[in-house]
Amino acid sequence: MNTGFNPHISVDIVVFGFEDNEGLKVLLINRDKDEDKKSIKLKLPGSLIILSERLHDSAQRVLMELTGIKDIYLKQFAVFDNPERLKDGEDLQWLRNTSGTNIERVITIAYYSLVKLYHYSETELSKAYNARWYNLDSVPELIFDHNEILAEGLSTLQKEFLTEPLCFRLLPGKFTINQLQRISESILGFTLDNRNFRKRINKLEYIVPLNEHQTGVSHKPARYYIFDSKKFEIINRELTGFIV
Amino acid sequence: MNTGFNPHISVDIVVFGFEDNEGLKVLLINRDKDEDKKSIKLKLPGSLIILSERLHDSAQRVLMELTGIKDIYLKQFAVFDNPERLKDGEDLQWLRNTSGTNIERVITIAYYSLVKLYHYSETELSKAYNARWYNLDSVPELIFDHNEILAEGLSTLQKEFLTEPLCFRLLPGKFTINQLQRISESILGFTLDNRNFRKRINKLEYIVPLNEHQTGVSHKPARYYIFDSKKFEIINRELTGFIV
Repeated sequence: MNTGFNPHISVDIVVFGFEDNEGLKVLLINRDKDEDKKSIKLKLPGSLIILSERLHDSAQRVLMELTGIKDIYLKQFAVFDNPERLKDGEDLQWLRNTSGTNIERVITIAYYSLVKLYHYSETELSKAYNARWYNLDSVPELIFDHNEILAEGLSTLQKEFLTEPLCFRLLPGKFTINQLQRISESILGFTLDNRNFRKRINKLEYIVPLNEHQTGVSHKPARYYIFDSKKFEIINRELTGFIV
Repeated sequence: MNTGFNPHISVDIVVFGFEDNEGLKVLLINRDKDEDKKSIKLKLPGSLIILSERLHDSAQRVLMELTGIKDIYLKQFAVFDNPERLKDGEDLQWLRNTSGTNIERVITIAYYSLVKLYHYSETELSKAYNARWYNLDSVPELIFDHNEILAEGLSTLQKEFLTEPLCFRLLPGKFTINQLQRISESILGFTLDNRNFRKRINKLEYIVPLNEHQTGVSHKPARYYIFDSKKFEIINRELTGFIV
């Protein structure tokens, strides 16, 4: 069997960040460095892989090159392989021009990533890299199938958030229960009952109260908590599921 | 950026089957149709994809061609991309010969699949397709990184088994609690306490007792149960996780 032409391989990364009063955000980059273009074309950070490069390394390289972000948590979540995914004429032409290759088909391996947003200032990202944080509910039309990749990245995060301690990657080391609730709500996309949430959290041995409170706030200072990952691992080693 | 040479893309499928008294099995095929070869080289069912083919379609096609199995549940679980994964000289030569292409690198998209083993008779599989069921604890060395793909497929199944009703794909429509326990144990790789298991199952509304018992058995006939997927969906819509 001769398979003929091989598809190109790329990686695309959905980078989620969280800001207390603004909820969950996603990092998008401007496709064209040329700011003079009339219409802005936005995309997820991503790139074709280089010969011999491993996918995970490629994703780290791309993030470093396109956003300056390095050494972050990356989770592979899906492969987007529709042969028609590049069909938009103008976007495909752009890809052919920038890659210098007569690309026909690209199969992309999608990752999602979680970063503490306050580590990456808007100004720096935008000045150096043409990158910007967008609220999830104000993401415009992206190139190719990037809206679909983002949507599937979010639904994977929502699902994995329920069983894995992912939200602590978006929070500061010390956080209040209020912050934990806000991040849970941002990820899930709906509000939770305050009292029940507080009750539930207080039962979790791996969310540990500190003898330390907020300072310089106008309301009653809230207590700080930390996430004890070692305790979490020990408790989670006792498997629990819907049958066993 | 010129990415130069594109890797080939393949799919490989870990097909799990279950037999009551023998536990979980995996379907392996003989690499060489030529039975005269001294040493048998075993592999997972898999193939390079064809131009324009979607990965999922490719996996279904490959299973049909190599094992006669069609229209089954397939779950994509990982991408194996190590540039060194084909390094074995003799195996790589075989791949080049059978594909008619000077292959350098293959990135493979791995799926796992769950089938009711008794639908696929050993004789038929082996006569027509050179395929055979192997107990998980007696899988020999496979070509390339197929042992690693199998191991990761199994650990994904073990994890997903805890939250998704996957085991019912391996069981007959009507099953006994004993069968359900045996399949849970086979997947998890350890034994469960009989009494606790029975107690737990009896609490689950979506595992429904029938007014029907085994016949023609020498021991006390056990009651049959069915899995009610609609009830399961309704109950599982109420999200539960470690925080909310």
